[in-house]
Order: sequence, then C-alpha cells, then structure tokens
Amino acid sequence: MPDQKPVLAVIGGSGAEGSGLAVRWAKAGHKVLIGSRTADKAQAAADKLNGLLGGGTIEGLDNLTAATRAEIVVLTVPYAGQLATLRDIKGALAGKILVDVTVPLVPPRVARVQLPAGGSAVEIAQKELGPEVRVVSAFQNVSAHHLMDLDHAVECDVLVTGDDKDAREIVVGLAAALGMRGLHAGSLANSAAAEALTSVLVFMNRHYKSPGAGIRITGLPQDPLGDPS
Amino acid sequence: MPDQKPVLAVIGGSGAEGSGLAVRWAKAGHKVLIGSRTADKAQAAADKLNGLLGGGTIEGLDNLTAATRAEIVVLTVPYAGQLATLRDIKGALAGKILVDVTVPLVPPRVARVQLPAGGSAVEIAQKELGPEVRVVSAFQNVSAHHLMDLDHAVECDVLVTGDDKDAREIVVGLAAALGMRGLHAGSLANSAAAEALTSVLVFMNRHYKSPGAGIRITGLPQDPLGDPS
Repeated sequence: MPDQKPVLAVIGGSGAEGSGLAVRWAKAGHKVLIGSRTADKAQAAADKLNGLLGGGTIEGLDNLTAATRAEIVVLTVPYAGQLATLRDIKGALAGKILVDVTVPLVPPRVARVQLPAGGSAVEIAQKELGPEVRVVSAFQNVSAHHLMDLDHAVECDVLVTGDDKDAREIVVGLAAALGMRGLHAGSLANSAAAEALTSVLVFMNRHYKSPGAGIRITGLPQDPLGDPS
Repeated sequence: MPDQKPVLAVIGGSGAEGSGLAVRWAKAGHKVLIGSRTADKAQAAADKLNGLLGGGTIEGLDNLTAATRAEIVVLTVPYAGQLATLRDIKGALAGKILVDVTVPLVPPRVARVQLPAGGSAVEIAQKELGPEVRVVSAFQNVSAHHLMDLDHAVECDVLVTGDDKDAREIVVGLAAALGMRGLHAGSLANSAAAEALTSVLVFMNRHYKSPGAGIRITGLPQDPLGDPS
C-alpha cells in the first residue's frame, strides 16, 4: 500500500452496495468519489452519505470523471449493466486496479446460482479490459444492510481473487479499512465461488429470515492478514 | 427423519473424506456400510475405523452391495470416478436419497475453480440418475483432517442443496449427527457454490498454511436448525 491512502471511485455508488462501501471507506479516511450515470444523481447520493458521516468529503461525479480522477476504481453496478459501464469508463482504467463487485444475479431467480458460461462475471470483465487493467474480485458477499449500519462491525470475511497477487494484497487492505478480514482466495477464476455464494446467501436470507447473512472462513492461523508466503 | 436412524452407505468410504464421515456417523449411532471397489478393501477400511471407535460395527462391502443394503447412499469418490461409480450402483438407488459429496477438482490445478460446463458436478449426477433418485449435495467443504480428529468438533457449516426440500431436511439432520450445522442452501444448482468454494479452501490451506480451512455462515437467527418456513 502507498503511504497516502489511494483515492477510490465507486462506480454505481448511488446503489445500496456501492453506497455502503463508499461511506465506510470515507469514514476510514479515504478520499471517495461516487460515480453514477449523471453527476446530479451521484452528488445526491454523496450528499446523503456525507450527512450520515456528519460532514464527509465524498464527491459525486459522472462515472467516467470519477474513474479518471481515482487511483483505484470499484465497480458496483447490477450485472445487466456491468459490461456497458465498463466500456464507458475503459479509457480511464489503464494501469489501474479495477475492483469488480459484480454478482451475476439473473432476475427473477436471484436465489439460484446462474454463473455465466465463461465461468464468472469478473473473468468476463478482465477479458473486456485486457491485461493493462488489473482486475480483482471482492465484496460480493458483504451485506449492504450491514455496511450502512456504521455503528456495528460487519460480520463477514471478504474473498479476494485476482491473477495479480500485489493487486490482491491492496484489496485485502481495502477490506481491512472497512473493518473486515480480506483473504487471498486465489486466481480470478476463483471469483466463481464468491459470485455463486451470493445467491446462496440470498436464499438463506429468505429461508431463515435474516437481514444479511455473510460468511467466515474458519481454521486459518491466528493472524492470516500477515502474508505468510 | 424416521424414528430409527437410517442405514448409511458411504461409497468410496475407504478414502479420506468418506472415512471421516463414516466414522462420525457410526459414532453417532448410525449403522454404516463402507463401499469400495472390492469388499476386501472396504473391510480393511472398516476394520481400521472400528478400531478408532474402540469396537465399532462398520461393515465393508463392494459398492453395489453397500448401496443395495442402505437407506441413504453417500458418494465420496474422486471427481474422475463419479459417473462410472454412479452407473455401477444406479440399480440400487431408485427411491433413495443420494448425498453427493463430489467436488470437481481437476488436477493438477486443484486450487483453481474449474466447474463443469453443466454448472456443477452434482447436477450432472442428478441428470444421470433421473428423477427417481433424490440427489442432495453436501459436505464438500468439510475437512477430512478435522473429521478424523474425533475428540474435536468440526468448525464448519454444511451447505445443503437439492431440489427436494424434504430430502434436504434429512441431510441437514445427517450434518447435525456429525456435530455440524447443516443449512438449507437452495436448489441443486446452488451446489456450484459449495463445489467452487472447495478450491478456494484448498488455496487458503496452502496460502495460509492451514490443515483444514472451513466456512461458517454469519447473520442467521439464533437457531437456524428449526425450519422457519
């Protein structure tokens, strides 16, 4: 991690998951830019989150401007908008890390795993963007409900997958900034596990009437945040 | 669940995962039959497990005989042998529950998710067996290492998926008999999550030098074992 906390753009940040991530990163001292299809919509979401923080510095911008001004770009749009949004901001991503939070939920059966033929939604993003963008997959299993509840820690580990280990390590740090344990979970192909798990958690939320089920990994050494390799 | 504990056949029970499940179910009072390609090999595994239990009643039989004599059949063979083994025992499965523990690990890259084109290994089993067999997927994420350590509880929840809810509920009970929390995780398609997660856990075992990582689901009501629906 650089000494200075990197500027983060949360594309689709006016949605529930993006808002939850944005407000917690802002609280942790990151400069956060909310991206939306229009700057107005983004600024309205930013104002609301700044209110929650009691005077935050989150800014709202259109997606491309937010991605251009950020050092790390986080994609939190619905699956149906993933590729179109990536094409809109592609020009601003070269040399950067893209953290893709996309989950391939296919309405109306969102509690049923329906992974894309290519294996996972995030691998498709990496193919679209090419090797000059380091794509990392993370945060698919984190409940938006719990993220917005700023007084409580989020009881969920973050599976971090990606083909570039250094980029993964940076995203493990971004999870820690949210108060969660980020865990190296392997190559980008392994994003399929986190993406599929989201439908399982949606199912459990309904079946067990939970506001936001999450996951923990058990059986790891005491402090798995230190990199043992 | 019937009043009497059902007789269980563990096909591939001479392997590590099957042995671990077999010994714990026997300890919980189930009659357990170990199935293997030859009765001799099965009996040798049964003898060893009975020794661990200090006088158990596990029997070793060839796969087909074990499946024939059991009320619930549990498949714990390597992925490469899944379909051939199912074809061998198919005639003994009609009207029964098949608990498929198969994980589509593709050597040598077993820490990389490589789900089959059909979505999941267990859905392929259901297609092979047809509707007269109720296939339930479970136990993919349970460490064999921890199962064999009879003095300690296994720190892992069991994701139970299947298209027949009553069959799923019975397998939730089989997890409880092992001292673990079984959780309804949706239709058989959702087995993809558990199958993919196994490669993630294999990755983490290497990366974090753990003997057996597992998972827990967080955020559910206090006692999710009761069926709230």
